[in-house]
Amino acid sequence: MQTAPQPAFEDVLAAAARIAPHAHATPVLRSRGIDAIAGCSLHFKAEPLQRAGAFKFRGACNAVWSLDDAAAARGVVTHSSGNHGGALALAARTRGIPCHVVVPEGAVAAKLAAIEAYGAILHRCAPNIQAREAKCAQVQADTGAELVHPYTDPRVIAGQGTAAMELFNAAGALDALVVPVGGGGLASGTAIAARALAPECRVFGAEPSGAADTFESLRRGEHVTDFVPDTICDGLRGTLGAPDFELLREHHVEVLTVDDADTIAAMRLLWQRMKLLVEPSSAIALAMVLGNRERFAGKRVGVILSGGNVDLDALPW
Amino acid sequence: MQTAPQPAFEDVLAAAARIAPHAHATPVLRSRGIDAIAGCSLHFKAEPLQRAGAFKFRGACNAVWSLDDAAAARGVVTHSSGNHGGALALAARTRGIPCHVVVPEGAVAAKLAAIEAYGAILHRCAPNIQAREAKCAQVQADTGAELVHPYTDPRVIAGQGTAAMELFNAAGALDALVVPVGGGGLASGTAIAARALAPECRVFGAEPSGAADTFESLRRGEHVTDFVPDTICDGLRGTLGAPDFELLREHHVEVLTVDDADTIAAMRLLWQRMKLLVEPSSAIALAMVLGNRERFAGKRVGVILSGGNVDLDALPW
Repeated sequence: MQTAPQPAFEDVLAAAARIAPHAHATPVLRSRGIDAIAGCSLHFKAEPLQRAGAFKFRGACNAVWSLDDAAAARGVVTHSSGNHGGALALAARTRGIPCHVVVPEGAVAAKLAAIEAYGAILHRCAPNIQAREAKCAQVQADTGAELVHPYTDPRVIAGQGTAAMELFNAAGALDALVVPVGGGGLASGTAIAARALAPECRVFGAEPSGAADTFESLRRGEHVTDFVPDTICDGLRGTLGAPDFELLREHHVEVLTVDDADTIAAMRLLWQRMKLLVEPSSAIALAMVLGNRERFAGKRVGVILSGGNVDLDALPW
Repeated sequence: MQTAPQPAFEDVLAAAARIAPHAHATPVLRSRGIDAIAGCSLHFKAEPLQRAGAFKFRGACNAVWSLDDAAAARGVVTHSSGNHGGALALAARTRGIPCHVVVPEGAVAAKLAAIEAYGAILHRCAPNIQAREAKCAQVQADTGAELVHPYTDPRVIAGQGTAAMELFNAAGALDALVVPVGGGGLASGTAIAARALAPECRVFGAEPSGAADTFESLRRGEHVTDFVPDTICDGLRGTLGAPDFELLREHHVEVLTVDDADTIAAMRLLWQRMKLLVEPSSAIALAMVLGNRERFAGKRVGVILSGGNVDLDALPW
């Protein structure tokens, strides 16, 4: 299934120490208004306030600072036109090493500009998985750069687990913790942290109805990879990673699906009540709570608001 | 010119103690990215995170909790379809007293719904100053409610000064402090606090080019009231108050004007880099700094981001 060792809680602890000089310990926010609407006590981990605007910086930073000096000097490479690309570029900059990002033709120009602004070298390829992997392999061969996969790399998964760790430390005991699910890196890291720090806390994944490969994989008990995503949640269109599938199954993470309309309503509610710019791929976690009120009624619920990289070019002003 | 006594720093101190149990001490936020763009060290007071989403809650809360029990029981009244209306309604709710808000026909439905959601009683009138004042007088006569004017009431001005007080306490010495100017309540309260706490700190007002009555009033040395506002900054369309004019002149507050296009660019920058939902009437303060870089180069500059009540119905989603 997969060959890299699965990360354990010790790896999350080590990641926390490793990224502490570089990453923000983001605040945990509350809203009386949203609590009243949801009928439970919500504790929002505000990762839009993380460097580069998303939790992705945690895993990328842990990977970059896990390298020995010789490997680091050769740089890192990944394929992502989204938050992971920017996060890895900024993490590489914190260590002063090269970062290569393979991006598909047709990716949103504003996102590519953001990745370049963090100092990464862009490599363009055709918009399909074969071209992407071939280009990555070529960059690795040409430069000796180390591949940092967005959600299957165990260093990345361990780094993502630090968000939940901080949330438990700040908010105290939680009955449930809800995170968005795309490739599964955040959900996996969260599950590892929760089992060690709060074994009574249930971990839930929120996944778009239009990209429900994780929901299907867990339901069928086999890794589903053949699907065509159709969702506004651009951060959640990727395919669940193989090690993530194993980790989510092993940790009994429950995944529930959410329609885009409910995600947008939750996003507007977060903007209105918390004044925090969250992207749809984050708001889906609150939408999942609001769509399953009976599951969370009266409980203390943590929600990881994963990022705030909204496409501002879509705004009317 | 005006009969109410002008507020002094003692009144700001008293306001701080009075509102402490009800208002948030909002955080002071930084952004490396925006500092680099501006060429100075910026300290943003995040009033979008204040209750009811704007600094207006400070002044309203101070006014409501300044009333003796008999007056309080009769309630409060104001005319405002914007942030002050919502702020006074919520402040009245913290004391459990009635709040009447006179609103013009044609006001944005979403804003009126927000004011009503805080428990206020709405009174509609024709959209002109005569009808508004007549309706206010009628409500006062009918109910005995106390008028709390949005920016000429000395209790309101003193309350608004608590934002700058908190900013100085959190950020330390500042060379300059920039606030938006509409009716002048925030600028007046800020000037009073700055003179007492940081006499070396210059206070600047940022005003829309399309509603530059304060700029004109200070330039001419006489209170200009005949103008027709034309700006996206809906919180800054009002006319400078008479006591505010005196206070700004007396405290040598310098007002600079900003075009709406620059305000919108600053708003997008704040959304992108700080993930804080600020409204145009707040972003204007950063726009003023960016448009006058030479004035602020290398300095420690405070900026009061006054509110975050963006019209979400204008969003494309």
